[in-house]
Amino acid sequence: MLELIRSLAVPNTTKILLASLDGLGGLPRPETGRSELETARVPNLTALAAEAACGLLRHVAPGITPGSGPGHLGLFGYDPLRFLVGRGVLEALGIEFDLRAGDVAARGNFCTVDAGGLITDRRAGRISTEVCVRLVERLRTIRLSGVDVFVEPVREHRFVLVLRGTGLSGRLGETDPQALGRAPVPARGLEAAAARTADLVNRFVDEARRLLADAAPANMVLLRGFDRLPELPRFPEVFGLRAAAIAAYPMYRGLARLVGMDVVKTGGTFAQEVATLREHWEAYDFFFLHYKDTDKAGEDGDFDAKVEALERFDAAVPGLRALRPDVLVVTGDHATPAILAGHGWQPVPVLVWSRHCGADPVTAFTERACVAGSLGLMPAHHLMPLVMANALRLTKFGA
Amino acid sequence: MLELIRSLAVPNTTKILLASLDGLGGLPRPETGRSELETARVPNLTALAAEAACGLLRHVAPGITPGSGPGHLGLFGYDPLRFLVGRGVLEALGIEFDLRAGDVAARGNFCTVDAGGLITDRRAGRISTEVCVRLVERLRTIRLSGVDVFVEPVREHRFVLVLRGTGLSGRLGETDPQALGRAPVPARGLEAAAARTADLVNRFVDEARRLLADAAPANMVLLRGFDRLPELPRFPEVFGLRAAAIAAYPMYRGLARLVGMDVVKTGGTFAQEVATLREHWEAYDFFFLHYKDTDKAGEDGDFDAKVEALERFDAAVPGLRALRPDVLVVTGDHATPAILAGHGWQPVPVLVWSRHCGADPVTAFTERACVAGSLGLMPAHHLMPLVMANALRLTKFGA
Repeated sequence: MLELIRSLAVPNTTKILLASLDGLGGLPRPETGRSELETARVPNLTALAAEAACGLLRHVAPGITPGSGPGHLGLFGYDPLRFLVGRGVLEALGIEFDLRAGDVAARGNFCTVDAGGLITDRRAGRISTEVCVRLVERLRTIRLSGVDVFVEPVREHRFVLVLRGTGLSGRLGETDPQALGRAPVPARGLEAAAARTADLVNRFVDEARRLLADAAPANMVLLRGFDRLPELPRFPEVFGLRAAAIAAYPMYRGLARLVGMDVVKTGGTFAQEVATLREHWEAYDFFFLHYKDTDKAGEDGDFDAKVEALERFDAAVPGLRALRPDVLVVTGDHATPAILAGHGWQPVPVLVWSRHCGADPVTAFTERACVAGSLGLMPAHHLMPLVMANALRLTKFGA
Repeated sequence: MLELIRSLAVPNTTKILLASLDGLGGLPRPETGRSELETARVPNLTALAAEAACGLLRHVAPGITPGSGPGHLGLFGYDPLRFLVGRGVLEALGIEFDLRAGDVAARGNFCTVDAGGLITDRRAGRISTEVCVRLVERLRTIRLSGVDVFVEPVREHRFVLVLRGTGLSGRLGETDPQALGRAPVPARGLEAAAARTADLVNRFVDEARRLLADAAPANMVLLRGFDRLPELPRFPEVFGLRAAAIAAYPMYRGLARLVGMDVVKTGGTFAQEVATLREHWEAYDFFFLHYKDTDKAGEDGDFDAKVEALERFDAAVPGLRALRPDVLVVTGDHATPAILAGHGWQPVPVLVWSRHCGADPVTAFTERACVAGSLGLMPAHHLMPLVMANALRLTKFGA
């Protein structure tokens, strides 16, 4: 599919703005029977929905709750079931570590082992991030022959390990036995080519054990989610777009960088993101604009806060339209219904506005209204081709 | 897909009830323009539809009329185009023969041949089931070296042949030339490994010819639909569910057993099925509850009887809801429109009720209303993942 798009993409001067409201989709609050989107006063989104083609996006598959990685890969045009990104890589992207082709990343936990080496706490009592940073300094002294070793603190007991060198494999089993009272297991190669990488990882773990011996409760490490940085077709080349990502949160910048977008420096608030968008409007064809507040409120299970987050985004819509994008898309990477206080599997509303988007009967930007939209219930990775078409950037298929 | 679900399934204490109304879908009666569901007074289903997510299921592919086997496999989460079950196996399941891994089953007909051995009636004048039983007794005396031979009567001229042993193949051509005036053809192996099985079958047929020589009109047999019992991923393991099947009819018990569900002993009426459901409510996580009356009336071409069957089911709905399932699904394995007096290819209404099913505009459980549902027109084998999600039994995909 991406090859087909690449072969059909043609130059144009049109501009595309894709606004991703993280965790956009919701569910009715039992007391009122109305979802967050149905509760919020969002006159600008309502007006836009009436002018746009609407529908619902499914990011992975029916019933499957997307993580942020697969959710955004789908929006960027990549089938998340085909382009898998391991947890180690996602963790590294989440701290905006500059992963390079061939790097192998793993998610690390500090843990506690007893005198016999058996695990007594898989999270080392959730040590503070401060302690994590200090212990990571110790691990950074580890040298392995033939590869560069990077250790980066994440939060509390979590860190990231990255090995950089030639001929590394990400096909390794985890060292976490996922149970207390057992010793960490050696990393095991899951393919013949992984033997050397497994050996390097096990030497790292041995050194870590030695360096952390006096650091209880964080006197040992567990590693899992090994993966190589996947080689994804580059977004700017597939779609022929100068693409900029504007996101206050590192994870989303990391995901955009993974597909080859330019990650533009911005501030920590959405107002600053919009200001950044305005500043760079002339320099790019495609903008991925990330809005985090909806997801944060949903994850907190705070229905009212999510409603307010939607209303704040709505207030920014006139400013986005004032830039006169040729294609304006509003959608999200997954649902985060406040009543679930976490990601959900529900399809996510999407609207595609352009001069050529066609008419449909939808006049409100809600989960329920979008069911009747002309876009139907579509796989998220079908969105980008549709957006490209609306931007008059795809030539016809066949003579 | 099943592998993905298996990797994401997590334990929970939620309970799922899947009610399959056999042949649920219908078509408008020309005199009124209203289908069976649109004609029936089904207040409980109507109320449930208003609270539930609704849609339509397509079991196989557009325009394809499902048999009961593919129809139910789809409901159980198996793509019926990938997991094929031969007619011999379905026939054996239909009489609840205890098929085992490696068994090869075929569908048999008694037929009539003339003095020259040419077929004059492919169904032996549709002999009575009584005669069939008596002749099957004769065939049961046949011994073949190295395999066990089972012959079971079905109905009228039909019987089932099962060979049990090691190294058998189900890839055999039929012995029925599908035309009068020709002799039965020898079974032919369709793969190299099938030569021995073909030989065994041909010896069985030779013996049968000898044993039936004086039994005109049923003086010969025809065999077709050879297949091995397929090895399907086991439902309880894929979905992590203790699964019980409650069905008065043997075919549906057989299909449930095929995927590894526990088949619970029940009586011959739907009221008895519901009583069985209540008795076993604590012991299982998932219940497949089969309702046959809708299909029977549809097959008879009796529109009014099908309407009444729907109303009888509707009357049982409050009793089902009183069990407080966390997820309640009402749907069917295929359409049996009374005006077709047989199975139809039409998509079948489905409703999924849970606390997290989301809202949609559908307020009636009919073919026409469900078109506007939030589930859209979905492949039946996508239902189970969605049901699992609604039961909060799937973790998220990707971090």
